[in-house]
Amino acid sequence: MTDPEELAERVREGDLRIHELEDHADYDTAARARRLFIERETGTELEAIGEYAFPAEQADPNIENMIGAAQVPMGVVGPVPVNGEGTSPTSQNSPSSANDGGAADGEHYLPLATTEGALLASVNRGLSVIGAAGGADARVTKNGMTRAPVFRVGGVVEAAETVEWVEANFEALREAAESTTSHGELLDIEPYVVGDSVYLRFAYDTKDAMGMNMATIATGEACELVEAETPASLVALSGNLCSDKKPAAVNAVEGRGRSVTADAVIPGDLLEERLHTTADAIAEANTRKNLIGSAKAGSLGFNAHAANVVGAAFLATGQDEAQVVEAANTITTMDAREREDGSTDLYASVSLASLEVGTVGGGTTLSTQSEALEILGLRGGGDPPGSNADALAEIIAVGALAGELSLLGALSSRHLASAHEDLGR
Amino acid sequence: MTDPEELAERVREGDLRIHELEDHADYDTAARARRLFIERETGTELEAIGEYAFPAEQADPNIENMIGAAQVPMGVVGPVPVNGEGTSPTSQNSPSSANDGGAADGEHYLPLATTEGALLASVNRGLSVIGAAGGADARVTKNGMTRAPVFRVGGVVEAAETVEWVEANFEALREAAESTTSHGELLDIEPYVVGDSVYLRFAYDTKDAMGMNMATIATGEACELVEAETPASLVALSGNLCSDKKPAAVNAVEGRGRSVTADAVIPGDLLEERLHTTADAIAEANTRKNLIGSAKAGSLGFNAHAANVVGAAFLATGQDEAQVVEAANTITTMDAREREDGSTDLYASVSLASLEVGTVGGGTTLSTQSEALEILGLRGGGDPPGSNADALAEIIAVGALAGELSLLGALSSRHLASAHEDLGR
Amino acid sequence: MTDPEELAERVREGDLRIHELEDHADYDTAARARRLFIERETGTELEAIGEYAFPAEQADPNIENMIGAAQVPMGVVGPVPVNGEGTSPTSQNSPSSANDGGAADGEHYLPLATTEGALLASVNRGLSVIGAAGGADARVTKNGMTRAPVFRVGGVVEAAETVEWVEANFEALREAAESTTSHGELLDIEPYVVGDSVYLRFAYDTKDAMGMNMATIATGEACELVEAETPASLVALSGNLCSDKKPAAVNAVEGRGRSVTADAVIPGDLLEERLHTTADAIAEANTRKNLIGSAKAGSLGFNAHAANVVGAAFLATGQDEAQVVEAANTITTMDAREREDGSTDLYASVSLASLEVGTVGGGTTLSTQSEALEILGLRGGGDPPGSNADALAEIIAVGALAGELSLLGALSSRHLASAHEDLGR
Amino acid sequence: MTDPEELAERVREGDLRIHELEDHADYDTAARARRLFIERETGTELEAIGEYAFPAEQADPNIENMIGAAQVPMGVVGPVPVNGEGTSPTSQNSPSSANDGGAADGEHYLPLATTEGALLASVNRGLSVIGAAGGADARVTKNGMTRAPVFRVGGVVEAAETVEWVEANFEALREAAESTTSHGELLDIEPYVVGDSVYLRFAYDTKDAMGMNMATIATGEACELVEAETPASLVALSGNLCSDKKPAAVNAVEGRGRSVTADAVIPGDLLEERLHTTADAIAEANTRKNLIGSAKAGSLGFNAHAANVVGAAFLATGQDEAQVVEAANTITTMDAREREDGSTDLYASVSLASLEVGTVGGGTTLSTQSEALEILGLRGGGDPPGSNADALAEIIAVGALAGELSLLGALSSRHLASAHEDLGR
Repeated sequence: MTDPEELAERVREGDLRIHELEDHADYDTAARARRLFIERETGTELEAIGEYAFPAEQADPNIENMIGAAQVPMGVVGPVPVNGEGTSPTSQNSPSSANDGGAADGEHYLPLATTEGALLASVNRGLSVIGAAGGADARVTKNGMTRAPVFRVGGVVEAAETVEWVEANFEALREAAESTTSHGELLDIEPYVVGDSVYLRFAYDTKDAMGMNMATIATGEACELVEAETPASLVALSGNLCSDKKPAAVNAVEGRGRSVTADAVIPGDLLEERLHTTADAIAEANTRKNLIGSAKAGSLGFNAHAANVVGAAFLATGQDEAQVVEAANTITTMDAREREDGSTDLYASVSLASLEVGTVGGGTTLSTQSEALEILGLRGGGDPPGSNADALAEIIAVGALAGELSLLGALSSRHLASAHEDLGR
Repeated sequence: MTDPEELAERVREGDLRIHELEDHADYDTAARARRLFIERETGTELEAIGEYAFPAEQADPNIENMIGAAQVPMGVVGPVPVNGEGTSPTSQNSPSSANDGGAADGEHYLPLATTEGALLASVNRGLSVIGAAGGADARVTKNGMTRAPVFRVGGVVEAAETVEWVEANFEALREAAESTTSHGELLDIEPYVVGDSVYLRFAYDTKDAMGMNMATIATGEACELVEAETPASLVALSGNLCSDKKPAAVNAVEGRGRSVTADAVIPGDLLEERLHTTADAIAEANTRKNLIGSAKAGSLGFNAHAANVVGAAFLATGQDEAQVVEAANTITTMDAREREDGSTDLYASVSLASLEVGTVGGGTTLSTQSEALEILGLRGGGDPPGSNADALAEIIAVGALAGELSLLGALSSRHLASAHEDLGR
Repeated sequence: MTDPEELAERVREGDLRIHELEDHADYDTAARARRLFIERETGTELEAIGEYAFPAEQADPNIENMIGAAQVPMGVVGPVPVNGEGTSPTSQNSPSSANDGGAADGEHYLPLATTEGALLASVNRGLSVIGAAGGADARVTKNGMTRAPVFRVGGVVEAAETVEWVEANFEALREAAESTTSHGELLDIEPYVVGDSVYLRFAYDTKDAMGMNMATIATGEACELVEAETPASLVALSGNLCSDKKPAAVNAVEGRGRSVTADAVIPGDLLEERLHTTADAIAEANTRKNLIGSAKAGSLGFNAHAANVVGAAFLATGQDEAQVVEAANTITTMDAREREDGSTDLYASVSLASLEVGTVGGGTTLSTQSEALEILGLRGGGDPPGSNADALAEIIAVGALAGELSLLGALSSRHLASAHEDLGR
Repeated sequence: MTDPEELAERVREGDLRIHELEDHADYDTAARARRLFIERETGTELEAIGEYAFPAEQADPNIENMIGAAQVPMGVVGPVPVNGEGTSPTSQNSPSSANDGGAADGEHYLPLATTEGALLASVNRGLSVIGAAGGADARVTKNGMTRAPVFRVGGVVEAAETVEWVEANFEALREAAESTTSHGELLDIEPYVVGDSVYLRFAYDTKDAMGMNMATIATGEACELVEAETPASLVALSGNLCSDKKPAAVNAVEGRGRSVTADAVIPGDLLEERLHTTADAIAEANTRKNLIGSAKAGSLGFNAHAANVVGAAFLATGQDEAQVVEAANTITTMDAREREDGSTDLYASVSLASLEVGTVGGGTTLSTQSEALEILGLRGGGDPPGSNADALAEIIAVGALAGELSLLGALSSRHLASAHEDLGR
């Protein structure tokens, strides 16, 4: 029973439901049958969608009701120059920091998938400037994937009692949570009380996995203990203080996933040669746009377009595309630094508060995404565990830095509109 | 000179730069040469990335340094039942509204591309409940793509003078802005003063285009007039009060792109049969999680996972993936409504403040994305102009509503963690 | 029956309720009886509270259950030098602006009431620097007191219908609203839709009154029309999109009451002489603290302590003390400006987005508050109407500017802690 | 040389500066001379301002350039019924909580100083309902006064190094900080990295003092150690991640000063008798206004008017009036709870995330403020230390709860506008 035409007909007749096709055929045939059904229902021809380059079965953990694939153009930028050893233009006076290098080091080509013309050209321009300046530093400064269930209690008296119990029994909760995972480690539980609701924000080191599901499952186990030992009753495993895929200050302030900063010092002559601008002009554009403009906009994102670079890197490397939301919690700083010789350098940085990345699980094992991670040398788990995801975060951060530098350079040269016109968008 | 091996070698030798390959070969050959170069530099094999299903030339406006495509599994959910004619469970008492229907009507299959297992199953579950309840209403309640340049002035005296001139000369500015576009219409200019910075937030009706570039170019033209006639000097064409791809209150409050609401009334027995929960339980989960939890998180997104559905629809239909950021500015409401017969319905709604969509331009013309839009019957410009993008916004909103309903149903049944385990993530 | 002892006894015995005393005695006797009752109930002596310097009857519109007064030390700072005529250091190149001066002009002593030692000294230090630099400019750049009722509708279809009616019938709504007030003018109604809730943000020019009650009453009248003509049903006259006495982006972005900016240019030598710092040091402190620090804090207030100055001025002049909340939505900018002669000036500004002030009504008629307004020459209604409240806003803004300048000067000289120690707090 | 006329004349002639008067006369004479000077400069008569009821010398730590006092009408509300022993309507099932009572217990009269007519009447109405319902629970759920200096480093490498040192040397930093205070205890240091800025948020238990200055001085001492041992250089002792007197998510999420919740369960018949409304109506008003309305407003304050009650209590009891800003970070919840007998109760709560109060220091020692604290039985330090400030926080929270209950009752009865009209505002 593997004729896709026949299967499609059975769906049309109501004999089969559209999500049941995989019960009656292999995954590719099921997808083809589904395309046939949709083609007839909607009077379309789904050629390109059906030309996917991976076995449909491979995508089974990632999608239901599969009809094929969306194909998004992928390019590369780079090399992305990362100084992982701790010796860099911005840290000349701290030799000791060499002991504590970043996870990424050396030059990398970064694959980006996007439909936004001019983006890769812009990032590349920034990277070449950073490279000529001696590369960028990047460090993960905080790490913790969070999940925050919400409990119902009778009122604040029970809330206080529950919080007290949780704080006194962290070890038992850790044991319960970690019993569900071979890699994850519970780092912290932060309680919040609002009336008769108690939120417990669990934070985990999920190593090379983005870790949201690991965190969810582990937290679920810990919740059973909370319910057994306190008056609290679980209402939802996620109470939005996590906060996943929403613009939320708790992530921008406290971080979620990796908090990562990348920075570089760009000599003034490079700015003039390559970007036709100056440190002062870029600093002014950054202050008026990214700092004061975002302040006036009531924003949690004080950057130009970090989400563009992160979004394209996420798509290429199999990250969760909706977590671009949190990645936008990024602050860009650009300051003129005068040298002793009277010339002026630019100190440029991006700090992404909540970058959620992984090199195992999720979409990372799909064919094109897996190849993209290989380009970076970061497919699968790292050694030590977590180092691959750290490195991915650092490289993406340097990519974002390049994008900020390039766009602010262009804006401060008043070239934005014309650049877009030239590139045909 | 079209041997990709030879081209790759010339790049390796520094004879050609990696972005110059299209000058020496057709687009597909250039992409192949680039892959070869990257493969050798990184010791990888890029098979799947090279198996893209569109002519590389087609992607020229969308990417630079192309090596192929990222392939993301695409499925369909639906049918998505939209009551476009204004007669619906939630509006029984307002017959007059029938005159003012939504842009979308009837049943649609919505393509979603994602790597998040369980997502389509979840949305589908929600849609089937909505369908059984008689469908959802959806309306675009506001529309305006914005761009907000920042100007430098001497101080507040000049700032006040500039604002006054702009307010007195809206017509001239409109003429200048609209001279650059055949479709776009300037709707409004909102001024903001911060010290010696003046921000002017231009809002446009960009019809079926998402319109950010249209808005940028038109605003650039208007800026020249502002600079000629006032003391203001342009610092950056985007001053972040736009605010593009950042989490910003200005978008959540005032909207950007489409502000769209979808809602439905679900009878209590349907909730029990299909979701094994009740209106009261869902309402409680929504209040504690989406309202109070997000409030405590300092969030602009009061929803469960709207970004998941929007992100997957954006990817399938060629929208700008980084604009998922603004889409997350969504408020979900769920309230129990008692009927006269004593039974309890659920009123469920999602209101997306800033959904930026288009059916022309950007990534919408790529092969798989264009097919996805055809499935919806929304490829290209609508009649009247803007109606296709309106309809896309409304259908995505109903999809997001289904996702919210389903997840809140699952949470209120405590099934989140186990659902994820079952689906193998 | 006016013996306070006897009245107090009757309250103690439950024969009279504590708020009924004014029904049985004059206001001062009632207050005395209440003090007696409280003294006995709590074993205290309320001497100072009873020594108020105004007739109790005067406070009848301001308080219930009066026992006396809180006395807060009041001092003066100044003179506050305001360049109202439009010729100023920051606007040398815009002679035309002289036509459009601010409401305040010349030198003013500003009364401040506070318990925060060092505050007046700090503001005074800042004012003397501003004065030596030629004074400050100040302008009200936006004006509108808001009230936003929330209505219940059946769903988005009715919501869209309601919004459409409101937009088509602005004139009728204006007439209804303005029928309740002799001074107020309805400027705008901004609609917001969230599910089955419709919010209408009414904005009024309330002239010299702070105007919240005027706006509430006028909006109440307009709401009756909305209810009569649309499916909408009023749930609450204030739906929090106003937003009164809450930290809210809608106020920070769009303003409430007066949006007012004050600025000045301070020569570098003055900074060194008076503040022992430099333009660059102050600019750096402002950027790292007020811009980047507040950004990272998820703040709507990008300033050092504007609320201190505003709060003290509010208390002295009879403003609503809880509206200090909105006043804190203030952005401070400090930038180094190089002169042609190579020296470096400081451009300093504060922009208060939502400063709600009045010179009539509320607490402005109380004895001490009325005298404080007289010191400023701003007691009662202005000519033209609104000019007194504008001038008060401008003078307070210059006071806040002085406070920012002084504190940033101190911080950049590392003197904060020691200053506090010296002043004995 | 103590003739005030003569002193005033010397100031007028420029022989003395206005802040030097205390060097030439006692405090009261200096204040009188200053009044005379201001009267002549501004053509006013400052009678009431001069009739202050405290020795001017007493106010020396609180103000400079004193001319007298602002007098704000003070009344009392109450009794405020607080169930401090842990047995309450909302916690019937948790007997163990009786071991862990709140700091406040029993009935209290709460003094409030305000110029907002109807406020005390409204709070009183709410309190009488709460009292009739058996009183409210209140608990401080978190406590920590914060100060967050900002340091400059070379870049992220040095930032990571600094953070690492701080985390490894908490004990040394605690010792340094606590060396400056006899009462304060350093609880935590939370680091934040943004580019080349490092913020360290120090949190202290400051017992019965509000503690901002204690925290500032202690942090200053710790900063010297940080500067000595790391590459970091102090830029400002306050880097706005504290965050003092600004609307900031860091406070709303993590708390500052006391985080305190008060709640009560109100039987439905009481709501009908006293407030002419129902639990469902109040819950609906709260959801549409305080939750959804504030959500749409981009707010950190999800309440009706908590700042009113807090502001009035702050003024009466000598708190820092500008810290009303943080107090507005309050979430109000109102939910209908069905009883087994079919009747419906209202669960009502307020959670103030960042209430900064003290019973020693600051303005608490002034005559009228000190008496107000005595009414509450909370003047001076508590036993154990901190218990008086805890109790003050709890009582204010119950007052705020009463204000919310009353206003939501009035709104849900559509009485807001008319109530204001009746009370003559």
